[in-house]
Amino acid sequence: MSRLEGACIFGQSGGPTSVINASAAGVIQEALKQDCITAVYGAAHGIKGILEENFFDMSKEDSYELDLLKTTPSSALGSVRYKLKNADEDETDYKRLLEVFKKYNIRYFFYNGGNDSMDTCNKVSKYMQKVGYECRVMGVPKTIDNDLWGTDHCPGYGSAAKYIATSTMEVYHDARVYDTGMITILEIMGRNAGWLTAASALASYKGNGPDLIYLPEVPFDLDKFIEDTTRIYKQNGKVIVAVSEGIKDKDGKYISEYGSDLAKTKDSFGHAQLGGLASTLANIVKEKTGAKVRGIEFSLLQRCAAHVASLTDVNEAYLAGQSAVKYAVEGKTDYMVAFERGEGPEYKCNIKLLNLSEVANTEKKVPLEWIKPDGTGLTQDFINYALPLIQGESKSPIEDGLPRFAKLKKVLAKK
Amino acid sequence: MSRLEGACIFGQSGGPTSVINASAAGVIQEALKQDCITAVYGAAHGIKGILEENFFDMSKEDSYELDLLKTTPSSALGSVRYKLKNADEDETDYKRLLEVFKKYNIRYFFYNGGNDSMDTCNKVSKYMQKVGYECRVMGVPKTIDNDLWGTDHCPGYGSAAKYIATSTMEVYHDARVYDTGMITILEIMGRNAGWLTAASALASYKGNGPDLIYLPEVPFDLDKFIEDTTRIYKQNGKVIVAVSEGIKDKDGKYISEYGSDLAKTKDSFGHAQLGGLASTLANIVKEKTGAKVRGIEFSLLQRCAAHVASLTDVNEAYLAGQSAVKYAVEGKTDYMVAFERGEGPEYKCNIKLLNLSEVANTEKKVPLEWIKPDGTGLTQDFINYALPLIQGESKSPIEDGLPRFAKLKKVLAKK
Repeated sequence: MSRLEGACIFGQSGGPTSVINASAAGVIQEALKQDCITAVYGAAHGIKGILEENFFDMSKEDSYELDLLKTTPSSALGSVRYKLKNADEDETDYKRLLEVFKKYNIRYFFYNGGNDSMDTCNKVSKYMQKVGYECRVMGVPKTIDNDLWGTDHCPGYGSAAKYIATSTMEVYHDARVYDTGMITILEIMGRNAGWLTAASALASYKGNGPDLIYLPEVPFDLDKFIEDTTRIYKQNGKVIVAVSEGIKDKDGKYISEYGSDLAKTKDSFGHAQLGGLASTLANIVKEKTGAKVRGIEFSLLQRCAAHVASLTDVNEAYLAGQSAVKYAVEGKTDYMVAFERGEGPEYKCNIKLLNLSEVANTEKKVPLEWIKPDGTGLTQDFINYALPLIQGESKSPIEDGLPRFAKLKKVLAKK
Repeated sequence: MSRLEGACIFGQSGGPTSVINASAAGVIQEALKQDCITAVYGAAHGIKGILEENFFDMSKEDSYELDLLKTTPSSALGSVRYKLKNADEDETDYKRLLEVFKKYNIRYFFYNGGNDSMDTCNKVSKYMQKVGYECRVMGVPKTIDNDLWGTDHCPGYGSAAKYIATSTMEVYHDARVYDTGMITILEIMGRNAGWLTAASALASYKGNGPDLIYLPEVPFDLDKFIEDTTRIYKQNGKVIVAVSEGIKDKDGKYISEYGSDLAKTKDSFGHAQLGGLASTLANIVKEKTGAKVRGIEFSLLQRCAAHVASLTDVNEAYLAGQSAVKYAVEGKTDYMVAFERGEGPEYKCNIKLLNLSEVANTEKKVPLEWIKPDGTGLTQDFINYALPLIQGESKSPIEDGLPRFAKLKKVLAKK
């Protein structure tokens, strides 16, 4: 546990979440406290900001504004989707990173993101090791998709899940005000893993949720879907269906692509104007049942609705950032901070460390045993897993009836 | 102010809001307190429930659940869109209403809704007068659209406005995380009046809102829109546009209908799969600018997101319901309860009464002088008008991290 003195740099990467800035607050506030960390830099747009020497001196920020990061959605420093080439194929970026690290005496690198970002983090870590430049590298997990391998869950998921469950409950009420039939189709994010769509099952658990839930983990059968929807429609007059944007048929074709096929047969369906998956399914169901059908996309709101974030998630996101700094200062490197659920009936979230090379690019899906045998819902095991993650109400300070988000000065670091 | 003894019946009508149940709570709780009101009935699905003798005895409900109505979105008793014929054309419904009123000795009729519902309320009132059946009739306003004539604003609007402004601020942050260009188009409800879309200007007022806002009050010029969007895109790389679903061109054609025209020219636009207005405009702008464009519909969420309701709105909705009962008991009839803004710098909302025949079917639009001369935003006068309406945070009790909505027993009234 040798003492390592030098600057640290922190970057945000990949799609934003409601709480990615809470992790930023954790990293920055902890790093500012540490004696051995001589400067705290925040990279503009992740790795790109480092390559372009475009980063901010975080010590210039007001502490009140840094605190507000805990309740400010999206990536305050700017994010990026930039895939580093393998160093043995093209060393250009790595040489440049090393040059920048040396110039600013950067000895701590914290990177906050999902699968791809952990790949970046891993590559930087391995390169610095290879060239013998001492730099402690720590990944901080983040993704509403909850698909990072090895961690019980990911910061960002709890808040997205809380938004989805809450909004689904509200839509449930809205969708049954009239005594006429109505089918509502909710389209939820998640291209490969169904965690977000599964969160709608929390609303069903409260008695105000979807009748049918379809995840990408199970091949989607259009005929079965129509059959199920029609049956419930005939029984109850109301049906709520939650579908993951990533559902595919048994041949691996995205159902959202059915839209273009349908557009070609518009005479039969009467609607050439198809939109995304929700509209596609809505049009199909409308044709089959004659019911009033409405498609709703939660769209970006599910990843930025900080106004209904989970306090548990905010606190854990902060903890993940803070822990990354503490562990790095203690001498740890080449890890991603991860969560482990404590034993016992009370929910407890412990920190553990995972090798970056293990997490990079590995995906975690919803366990098939948590999906009901007929593929249209989630079991109590999923509810037990997800419920603790959405507890507690995080609230921004309110000004004029609206959230007061952090306003960073973003003072560029001296070159 | 003669004392009138008898039962009261209350109905919810038209599209639901986040706070229509707060008005229900106001009516029901006040009516239960009044000695002269011998029974309190809640009609299932508004006027239809009365015609079908399908209504509930509200005295059977737990007072805790009635309290929860204040924070439960949508219409707990069920709503309806049912237009009564004119009595001189077809008296059938009216005769049936009279029969039911007599059978249950209903002497108070409270009806909660928007323009069409006030028409129903007015017709019932006039018929009862005509046939000499003593019944005090009071309308309680409700509409997220805020388009009821004669009242400063409508219960339901403040909460929808708060949702729209808050979500727009969050999307604003989300839409600028990458350093690549991005145009975001938000589609907001409001077929004829632009009040809801105007609420996005509250986000702009906080520095986190749309660059361009288009209301149905001003004819929409597609070329000008493309020009404005392109100019801002070239300047800033990011553009946020808020459009009302009801925008029309100078010939009165809905812009949302342009979608089907575009679908016919799909080769040029490359996308046959158009959705609603947001997608239509997104596709047009994408074609013209080459930018990444995203269309977002707030959809039903803007009228049911009780989790971010305005406390001012909740309290005023309750007050409107409560006042209707108090005034009726005092002897008033044939009125709609309305709001009047008190003089002075502090916001104050006073109750006044409007003749039902004046409000029925009359529409109030956003004053043209509150719209910027170029038609792409709102003036400070609008901000001053709207800001007081979104103040205060209404929160449901939370169970398991999710809102606990009212659960009514709905015990049918004894026939």
